[in-house]
Amino acid sequence: MEVGDRIRVRKGDNVYEGILMPTDAGKGIVSLKLDNGYNFGFNKENVSMELVEAGRPFSATMPKVDIEYKDELPDVAVIGTGGTVASKIDYQTGAVYPAFSPEELLMLVPELSDLANISGREALSIVSEDITLKDWQDIAKTIYGYIEDGHDGVVVTHGTDTLHYTTSMMSFMLRELPVPVVFVGAQRSSDRPSSDAAFNLISSVNFSSSDCKEIVLCMHADMNDEFCHVHRGTRVRKFHTSRRDAFTSINSRPIARVYGEGAIEFISSYKDESSGDMVLDTDVEEKVGIIKTYPECRDMLSCLIDKGYRGAIIEGTGLGHAPLSMHDEISRGIEEGMFLGMTSQCVHGMVNMNVYRGGRVLKEKGVVPLGDMITETAWCKLCFGLAHYHDHSELKGFMTSNFVGEMTSRSQADEYNYCR
Amino acid sequence: MEVGDRIRVRKGDNVYEGILMPTDAGKGIVSLKLDNGYNFGFNKENVSMELVEAGRPFSATMPKVDIEYKDELPDVAVIGTGGTVASKIDYQTGAVYPAFSPEELLMLVPELSDLANISGREALSIVSEDITLKDWQDIAKTIYGYIEDGHDGVVVTHGTDTLHYTTSMMSFMLRELPVPVVFVGAQRSSDRPSSDAAFNLISSVNFSSSDCKEIVLCMHADMNDEFCHVHRGTRVRKFHTSRRDAFTSINSRPIARVYGEGAIEFISSYKDESSGDMVLDTDVEEKVGIIKTYPECRDMLSCLIDKGYRGAIIEGTGLGHAPLSMHDEISRGIEEGMFLGMTSQCVHGMVNMNVYRGGRVLKEKGVVPLGDMITETAWCKLCFGLAHYHDHSELKGFMTSNFVGEMTSRSQADEYNYCR
Repeated sequence: MEVGDRIRVRKGDNVYEGILMPTDAGKGIVSLKLDNGYNFGFNKENVSMELVEAGRPFSATMPKVDIEYKDELPDVAVIGTGGTVASKIDYQTGAVYPAFSPEELLMLVPELSDLANISGREALSIVSEDITLKDWQDIAKTIYGYIEDGHDGVVVTHGTDTLHYTTSMMSFMLRELPVPVVFVGAQRSSDRPSSDAAFNLISSVNFSSSDCKEIVLCMHADMNDEFCHVHRGTRVRKFHTSRRDAFTSINSRPIARVYGEGAIEFISSYKDESSGDMVLDTDVEEKVGIIKTYPECRDMLSCLIDKGYRGAIIEGTGLGHAPLSMHDEISRGIEEGMFLGMTSQCVHGMVNMNVYRGGRVLKEKGVVPLGDMITETAWCKLCFGLAHYHDHSELKGFMTSNFVGEMTSRSQADEYNYCR
Repeated sequence: MEVGDRIRVRKGDNVYEGILMPTDAGKGIVSLKLDNGYNFGFNKENVSMELVEAGRPFSATMPKVDIEYKDELPDVAVIGTGGTVASKIDYQTGAVYPAFSPEELLMLVPELSDLANISGREALSIVSEDITLKDWQDIAKTIYGYIEDGHDGVVVTHGTDTLHYTTSMMSFMLRELPVPVVFVGAQRSSDRPSSDAAFNLISSVNFSSSDCKEIVLCMHADMNDEFCHVHRGTRVRKFHTSRRDAFTSINSRPIARVYGEGAIEFISSYKDESSGDMVLDTDVEEKVGIIKTYPECRDMLSCLIDKGYRGAIIEGTGLGHAPLSMHDEISRGIEEGMFLGMTSQCVHGMVNMNVYRGGRVLKEKGVVPLGDMITETAWCKLCFGLAHYHDHSELKGFMTSNFVGEMTSRSQADEYNYCR
């Protein structure tokens, strides 16, 4: 049996059918791509196998198509960074080949040619959990370049694991945008019947010629193909490991809905004007950690202090508390000049370190409550802030004020009832 | 003006009215308890103050009431561990005094005397973020004692910050319960008009004489006083910093609804039988950490290895991934004999480390995917597991199988569509 063949595997009373996959190591493991799209590994010694159907040959190269430029359509740059949103799949082996030439994108999602003149390229090809601060600087520069070149909108495809970290960081690095910058991913790769890739991509291209001058994230809003949500880049989080509607706006409403037929319904306020002087501002500090607290949590902050970290986000409990076991470390971190900001592992809601004594004590030590920013955004903001503000009180001012829509001011919060 | 006086503070154009609070340090700060229950601090130099009404004297001691024993009612032990669920408040200063004698509880929530013969005591008085593994052992022993003494149910009041960590740990430490053990908290202290303390407490006492033989958490289910949700102790998480409906069952439905008038509606399966041989099993390993990953995360796992930690939960991204920057640390941790389990910071959904190459590589290194357990439960289970299984493969078997309702088996997951 060859890689790519359809085979049947019997293990005890269970029968599995799927495509034989290449395995990473010759460890006697049979790896099968099941019809539901997932891979399943078996120890060769425990199973019997039979051939169902021989594999068909596959070409990773797509036929070239001619793209006709249409004057009446907007010019949209699609930038690839990896992830499976726009990929061509070898249906036999399940191997995924990124598809990022404009021709390939249009082969995969022909509807795009009715929406925009698509150009662009693959700027990066990584799985998103491996993204680095350097990658972010490169992505920001690439986006900036395409906008400078006069594109009417930019769409960036990205793996979903850290998609919201990236949209948050981009919101700090790229400001006063003249056009929308829409990040998009897919939860199911294009080889699965339930794939959301095409729908998300079409919705993103549709939104990319709107008048919203922000970094946003566009993904499925529900289990159907009815509409996508457009989330503010600093206010969104991956909230399910596998569902297509995995991304949720936190402590704010999504900006808009984009329906299948292209209609855009704005459902909250957004930035529709900009100074026109686009800012590319990519300096970031890399010595910044996140510590999620738990009962009797200790040691990790000490470690960061000893390694010369310049800041950390403490993802505390409730309204912004850390256990007594961390208090000495926290004092030492502050003394050593670290910036320690507090968010909540509750995810929803606002921290408030004035309500209980524990919060007040930490605040007096110098821990800074970060309002209703989610941890991931707070971390991006601190990486950015530490590279821009060298005076502690200026940095504190920056971290506790709304800069690009990432946090609700206290007066807004009262209005929205966050504190009650 | 004295602490306890009602005063009006003007700061610029803004006027604030509230009760003058004691401040921790004489730093020229005026601290005001606003009518919405929150405290607000002002720098004395920036404000003008006027007296509205002088404070009234307060006694922290409640009048003694006689409790009549009613044969027809169940005997319920209420155990206090701290938190504000049942407290008496000095309305003048906002100071909170725990109220845990049965008499005091009945003074505060007189309805309880129609529901049960209440006994019990305050076993502990801490803010819940400071809870320790030792405290958990004590709480488990206390609960065990009250059940051994023949009570028909146990209610434990607890601060909300780490309430779900405690219910999860208790689920491992106390098994084969003959009666319900219901944990309860309050998001708003009893001095606020919106307090949920009485409603949650009444619902908990109502549920404590049901036939559910599990550790559960009972809290407000919505913004109204319509019903409380009863959540399985291992499947629940605090998901809002301040809302009364802050607790949510994750990857499972709540067990039941308890309505204001006492009706219990079971909405998912639960354990209504037990062997009768109640198990008190409190050994736990304390050298266990949680690491929430982020792009280019590094250093923290090394620190835990160097400090002799025996295990850690890696709260990775997406389906269970950690950045390349951690891979060497992870290999070293495994070599040093640490147990490394993977959960997802997505919170909802199941990890699956077979889908992407990054997940498979980590799995081959020895990282163990922990299904749809939430991070907090996985951490409690690992603290418990490391004290009970000294053989790695036995520990792995324990960590990846359902023990007390804390995780969904793969076949159940398929049924519930978690993987799709």
